Amino acid sequence: MIDIAYEEAQAGLAEGGIPIGAALFAADGRLLGRGRNRRVQQGDPSLHAEVDAFRAAGRQRDYRSTVMATTLSPCWYCSGLVRQFNIGSLLVGECRTFSGGQDWLAENGVRVTVLDDDRCSAMMTAFIAEHPDLWHEDIGLAP
Amino acid sequence: MIDIAYEEAQAGLAEGGIPIGAALFAADGRLLGRGRNRRVQQGDPSLHAEVDAFRAAGRQRDYRSTVMATTLSPCWYCSGLVRQFNIGSLLVGECRTFSGGQDWLAENGVRVTVLDDDRCSAMMTAFIAEHPDLWHEDIGLAP
Repeated sequence: MIDIAYEEAQAGLAEGGIPIGAALFAADGRLLGRGRNRRVQQGDPSLHAEVDAFRAAGRQRDYRSTVMATTLSPCWYCSGLVRQFNIGSLLVGECRTFSGGQDWLAENGVRVTVLDDDRCSAMMTAFIAEHPDLWHEDIGLAP
Repeated sequence: MIDIAYEEAQAGLAEGGIPIGAALFAADGRLLGRGRNRRVQQGDPSLHAEVDAFRAAGRQRDYRSTVMATTLSPCWYCSGLVRQFNIGSLLVGECRTFSGGQDWLAENGVRVTVLDDDRCSAMMTAFIAEHPDLWHEDIGLAP
């Protein structure tokens, strides 16, 4: 599951975007939707990776058995998405370069797994070093 | 400000959508973006009203002095948006038909005003009575 999210992040990087990818899966492992951060590509600040994957999955009636995989710890916006729609499980590639709402989600009943994946953290660490302004914009940190 | 959010909600209702509207304003009252829930119209579950208004405002570098006006108390997804991007002020039409994250946001530094607007609550109460399934789908309540 994290491999698909990572592929999305790499595709975003190749497009000149912020390399964060995500994918939503059914309980049986079937892919429901995959996506990536598209702030740069589409000039759309609302398309964080998790939101893009959620959107790609279309209208669903029950998310309780689904798994959201994301290369990076989800920010409050994406954590709120997971909590509101009762997405059952969250798989986080890494939370070293950014630590978001994974503990808050775990406290509220989401099954959280943090993989501490070296590919994910290396990719994000390098990106932040090269493009700090873009990264800060993406998480709402004003100059 | 709430009038523009209300107009958006009414436009959504006329389209057969869920009647929730929102708008993002600069500190001087200038409209940055307006939007509405488009789950039905675009088959897009990610487009809650606040997200649609945020998207319409495009990329911004600093949200601290902005005001998000919304006809209905923001769910966790939209509350997470407000918190992550440090949107300074939240104007809520009503929180009688649905009570979301306004207290959580106030505790975290957002200036929150709840208007208890009768037009907003009448519109939403009537919609929920007529379309409970659609409403439950929109807030992630499984059947």
